[in-house]
Amino acid sequence: MVPIVSIVGKSDSGKTYLLEKLVSILVARGYRIATVKHDIHGFEIDREGKDSWRHKQAGAATVVLSSPTKIAVIKDLSEELDLEQIRSGWINEADLILTEGYKRAHYPKVEVSLFKHAGQLICSGEDRLVAVVCNQPISPGVPVFQESQIGELGDLLEERFLKNRTEPKVQVLIEGKPLEMKPFVQEIVWRTCRGFFSSLKGWDPAGEVVVKISGGDKDGVV
Amino acid sequence: MVPIVSIVGKSDSGKTYLLEKLVSILVARGYRIATVKHDIHGFEIDREGKDSWRHKQAGAATVVLSSPTKIAVIKDLSEELDLEQIRSGWINEADLILTEGYKRAHYPKVEVSLFKHAGQLICSGEDRLVAVVCNQPISPGVPVFQESQIGELGDLLEERFLKNRTEPKVQVLIEGKPLEMKPFVQEIVWRTCRGFFSSLKGWDPAGEVVVKISGGDKDGVV
Repeated sequence: MVPIVSIVGKSDSGKTYLLEKLVSILVARGYRIATVKHDIHGFEIDREGKDSWRHKQAGAATVVLSSPTKIAVIKDLSEELDLEQIRSGWINEADLILTEGYKRAHYPKVEVSLFKHAGQLICSGEDRLVAVVCNQPISPGVPVFQESQIGELGDLLEERFLKNRTEPKVQVLIEGKPLEMKPFVQEIVWRTCRGFFSSLKGWDPAGEVVVKISGGDKDGVV
Repeated sequence: MVPIVSIVGKSDSGKTYLLEKLVSILVARGYRIATVKHDIHGFEIDREGKDSWRHKQAGAATVVLSSPTKIAVIKDLSEELDLEQIRSGWINEADLILTEGYKRAHYPKVEVSLFKHAGQLICSGEDRLVAVVCNQPISPGVPVFQESQIGELGDLLEERFLKNRTEPKVQVLIEGKPLEMKPFVQEIVWRTCRGFFSSLKGWDPAGEVVVKISGGDKDGVV
C-alpha cells in the first residue's frame, strides 16, 4: 500500500510551492513520487485543437494518449473518486503519494501556512497532522518547519513514511502455527484474497483482512 | 473484454477526422467510447504554469488531477505500453476502444484514405482489415465507405463489435455438469481467478482460462 500524505492549507498559503519543493527533495533521494491535485472546480488539461482534445470533444468518455515515454488518461466520472479509489485504481509504481488538498480525507497531513493568512491554521489539533510549515511563531503541537527547513521536513517524511516500509504482510496460521511462505506465494495469496473480497460490500483495501475458518469438519469447509 | 478497433492510415489521411465522426455517431447511439491516440513522438498535454504541470516539472513520476466530474493521470514510463496493457490497466467502463494509429498491432482495423495520398492504402490485404473509408474507386476486398457514409461504417462496427456482446463467461463443471451460479457469484469466481493467476508468468487477461482439477483424492486436492 503506497503511503499518502496530504499537503493542506488555506487558499494561497503555498501548497503547490511546498509540494514542488518536497517532490524535488524526495526524487533527488531516489524515491518515486506520485502527486494528486484535488480540483473541486474541475480542470482543463488538454489543449484545444490537439487530436486528444478533438476525441474528447467528439464525446469519448475516456481518452488515452500513449507515447514511448509516458501515458496520459482523461476520463469522465459520474461521481468523484476518493483517495483510496485513486490509489488503488490509478497509481502504481510509487513510493509515496503527496496530495495537494484533501483536507477532509483521513490521511496524514502537512499544513502549509506561508503566504496568505500566514500563521492561521486550518488543521490545528487534528490528530492526523504530522507537521506545519510556517515562518510565524506558532505552537500547533507538532513539529514546525520554516520555509528554509523544507529539507528537514523531507527527512521527517522519509523517516516516517519511506524508510523501513514493509509490504502487506500475509500470514496463514494453521492451528496458530504460521505456514512458511515465500514472498511470491504471499503475493499470490494476497492477490487471491483481494480478488475475492474486493467484489463484496464492505471491502476496504486499506484495512487488515483476517480470514478465519474454524470449527466443524475442516475438510468439508475448505 | 472491451473490443478494440484501430483507425489507421497514412499521415494526414484523415484519421482524427474519422475518429471524431465515429465517436459522435456511436456516443449518440448510447455507447461509451474510449479512444487511444498513439503518439510515437511524445506529447505535451499539461499547460505550463498549472499546478499539475508544476508537480510534473518538480519530478513527480505520476500526476493525478481529480475533480468531481473527471480524472486525469499523467505517468512516466520506462517502456511503452502495448494496447493490451492500456486496455487492462487504464480503461474501464467502455463499450468500445477506438485507437488512432497502432497499425502494427493485431486488432481489427479501419483504414482511412481521404485527404493526402487518397486511394493509397497501407493495409490492403491485411487480414484484420475490416473496412476502408475512401472517396476513390478502390477494391481492397473489404467494404469501402465514402466520406458521406460514415454512419454506415458505424452500423458495421456496431453490428460486429457492440451488439450481442457477452461478458466473460464463467463456468464451473463438476464431472462435466455445470454448477449453477448467479452473475454475482460468477463475478466473484472471475475476480478470484484473475487475482490468483495474474501474478503468474504467462498470464494473459485476454485469453480463455481453464482450470482443471482431476484425478486422485479430490477432497485432498481442493
